[in-house]
Amino acid sequence: MKHIYFDSIAGTPVHPEVWKEMEPFIKVEFGNPQSLHSFGQKTRKVIEKARERIANLIGAKKEEIYFTSSGSEANNFAIKGLAFAYQNKGRHIILSSIEHQSILNSAKFLEKLGFYFSYLPVDRYGLVDPDDVRKSIKEDTILVSVMWANSEVGTIQPIKEIAKICQERGVLFHTDAVAAVGYVPIDVSKIGIDSLSLAGSQMYGPKGIGALYLKKRTKIIPLIHGGMQEEGKRAGTENVAGIVGLGKAAELSIRKMEERNKKLMKLRDKIIKEFPEKVNYIYLTGHPEKRLPYHASFCIEYIEGEAMLLSLDLKNIAVSSGSACVSRTLRVSHVLLAMGYPHALAQGSIIFSFIENNTEEEIDYLLEVFPPIIERLREMSPLYNKHFSKKE
Amino acid sequence: MKHIYFDSIAGTPVHPEVWKEMEPFIKVEFGNPQSLHSFGQKTRKVIEKARERIANLIGAKKEEIYFTSSGSEANNFAIKGLAFAYQNKGRHIILSSIEHQSILNSAKFLEKLGFYFSYLPVDRYGLVDPDDVRKSIKEDTILVSVMWANSEVGTIQPIKEIAKICQERGVLFHTDAVAAVGYVPIDVSKIGIDSLSLAGSQMYGPKGIGALYLKKRTKIIPLIHGGMQEEGKRAGTENVAGIVGLGKAAELSIRKMEERNKKLMKLRDKIIKEFPEKVNYIYLTGHPEKRLPYHASFCIEYIEGEAMLLSLDLKNIAVSSGSACVSRTLRVSHVLLAMGYPHALAQGSIIFSFIENNTEEEIDYLLEVFPPIIERLREMSPLYNKHFSKKE
Repeated sequence: MKHIYFDSIAGTPVHPEVWKEMEPFIKVEFGNPQSLHSFGQKTRKVIEKARERIANLIGAKKEEIYFTSSGSEANNFAIKGLAFAYQNKGRHIILSSIEHQSILNSAKFLEKLGFYFSYLPVDRYGLVDPDDVRKSIKEDTILVSVMWANSEVGTIQPIKEIAKICQERGVLFHTDAVAAVGYVPIDVSKIGIDSLSLAGSQMYGPKGIGALYLKKRTKIIPLIHGGMQEEGKRAGTENVAGIVGLGKAAELSIRKMEERNKKLMKLRDKIIKEFPEKVNYIYLTGHPEKRLPYHASFCIEYIEGEAMLLSLDLKNIAVSSGSACVSRTLRVSHVLLAMGYPHALAQGSIIFSFIENNTEEEIDYLLEVFPPIIERLREMSPLYNKHFSKKE
Repeated sequence: MKHIYFDSIAGTPVHPEVWKEMEPFIKVEFGNPQSLHSFGQKTRKVIEKARERIANLIGAKKEEIYFTSSGSEANNFAIKGLAFAYQNKGRHIILSSIEHQSILNSAKFLEKLGFYFSYLPVDRYGLVDPDDVRKSIKEDTILVSVMWANSEVGTIQPIKEIAKICQERGVLFHTDAVAAVGYVPIDVSKIGIDSLSLAGSQMYGPKGIGALYLKKRTKIIPLIHGGMQEEGKRAGTENVAGIVGLGKAAELSIRKMEERNKKLMKLRDKIIKEFPEKVNYIYLTGHPEKRLPYHASFCIEYIEGEAMLLSLDLKNIAVSSGSACVSRTLRVSHVLLAMGYPHALAQGSIIFSFIENNTEEEIDYLLEVFPPIIERLREMSPLYNKHFSKKE
C-alpha cells in the first residue's frame, strides 16, 4: 500500500535534481577542497558555486555563507559564537520562548558560563510582540534571537520589525530560519539581520548539511575549531556532496518557490477548512494567516498526539506531534505551553506538514480514515468519558 | 592522461560498496530517525546498524559510539566536552605538541575560559615519551590527549603505555585516531582509552561524517546542544546516508585491513627505499618502523614543498605537503618544527600517502618524473645555489 507523507517539518525527500548533482561527488570526485592539487581544485570550485546559490536565495553575499552539518549546528554556532565574540560588550541575550531546542539548550550552556537570558512571551497565535523586544533590551544586551517561523505551529514572526528595533539599538539579531527558507521570501540585504540559520533537510536537500549566514564584519568565535576551512570559522573536512546538494536545493527553491507554495497552500487551506468540519473539540494552532504555506497544525481535545500519530502510521500516513526533535522523549511541546495552551490540550497536538508531491486525494483519504480513529481513541480516553458522563 | 593519487591523508575515495549502501538513503528513504512513524523507523534502524559496525572495528560497545560531522568535530567534542564536564576536578590538560589543529585550537579556546595546558615534546621521529606523560600529570590534571598516529609524518605513538599511565593516575585519555582507524588494529576494550576520534573520509567512507567513541559512564558536555539525537549528546538531524556509509566503511575495514595493509606497505616500503636512491639531500620524516602502513614522508633540502606539489600536479600526480588542513595557508608544519627540523628544511616537506588501488607502476612513474623536477626546482632556488657556490 502507498505511504502518505505529511511530515515535511521532520524532513523533506531529496529532490531528484539534487541527488543527481550530488552523485559525482560521492562516487567520483573525492578531492579534499583544501588540497592544492587538481583533485582539490575541482571540489573547491563546486563548494564556491553552492555558496553563491545559497547566498542568492536569501539576498546575501557569497562570502557571508558558512557551511555547517545541520540547522542545529548553525544555531549553536550563532548563539555561542556571537556570545563569546561580544562578551566584552555585555552578557545579556534575549530569546523568544518558542525557540528551537538547539537555541534554548545553547542558552542553558551559556548560562553556566555567566551569560544571562530574557525570554520573550508569545500570544495565543505564537506571535512575538516587537514592543516586547524593545522593552527587553538593556544596556548590556548583545544579542536577540527570534525564529523566522515555528515548525510546530507554523506561525511566521514579524521579523522585519524585530530586526529594525535591534538595528536601532545596536544589538545583534539572529534568526533561526530553518522552517522558513525556501518558502518565505527572504532578503537579508534589505532587513538588518546579522545571522540566520538554514538546513538542507527542510528544503528538498540532503540531511547532514546546513548553513549560517553571517553579516560581513560580524565577529564570531568558531564552534568547531581547527583548520582553515570556511575562512577559519568552521573546521573539518567539507561535506562536499552535501554542500553541492544544499546549493542545488537553494537554486531549485528560487526557481520553484512560487509554484511550490501555491500548491502547498491549497493543500494546507483544504485541511484547515475541512478537518474541523469532521471532528469536534479541535483547535487550529498557530496564526490563521501568518503561517507557513506547507503547515497545518491542530490540538485535538481529550486525546494524545502520540496515539494519533501511531494510529495514522498503521494506516500508512506519517505526521508529527510536537517537534520532531522532542517527539521521541514524549514531552509536551514548550511552544504550545508558551502560547497558553493547557497541558492536557497541548498533549493532543498534531501537525500536518506537506511536501510538494502531496495531492488533494491524499488529504481526502486522511479525512476519510482519521475521524473514526479519533472517535475510537476518545472512547478509550478516561478524560473524555469523565467529561461527557458529567455533562449527561 | 591518467591521474595518480598519492594523498590519502587528505581523503580517500569512497569505496563502491560504501556508496551502494548509501544510495537508497539519499534517493528513497528520507525519514527522520527521530520520527515515530515508519519512515523514521527505517532510518533509525540503519543508524543503529552502522553504530554497531563502528563499535566492532575498535572493540567498543554500540552505545559508546556518537556520530559527528568530521574528525575535527569529534576532537572538539572530546576536548571541550570533557574539559567542561570535569572542570570541578581540575583545569589542567596535557596535549602532545604534534596534535591536529582541531585539538590545538580547541585548547586555545579553552585557555581563555581558564583552563591551562602542558605540551609534551616529541623526539626526532615524532614519538612521545610515556615518561613525559607521567611527569606532566599534576594534582589538577583532568585529561591527556595524544594522537594515535600523525598524518604528516606517519609515526604511531605508544598509545598502550600512555593510556596505562593515565588510567593508573585517574586521568582521562583521549586519542585522535583519524589517521589510524582502519589501518592499525584498535581494541579500546583492552586498553584504557576514554575517548577516540575517527572520520569517514580517511577510511574509504564519505566526507562529512565522523564519530567519537566515549567510554561508558564518561561524562561529557555536548558541543552541539539541542534535540535528543545521539542520546542527547549531539544534536542535529542525523546525516543518515553519511552514517550508513561510515558503517559500511568500518565493516570493510575489518574485512580488508590485513590485505589492504599488505599492499599499502609494499608501496610504502618501495618508495622509502627507492626514492632516496634517486635524490640527494633527502630525509625520511617520522619513525622508520613505527609508522602508518600507507605513509611515506620526506623532507627535501633546498626546495619548497609547495613548489614540488604544484610541479607534480602538472604531471597529474597528487601529493601533500604539510597537513591537508594547513596546506592552503602555507604555514610550515608545527609537527616538523616540534620534531626539531630547522625551518628551512621543514619547508621541503612532501608526503606520499597511498590508497588501496595505487600500483607499483604508479610509483615507478613518480620515481621517473620526480627527480628531474627536483633538480630543476633546485636550480631556481637561491638557497641551493648559495650553498653550493660556497662549497665549490
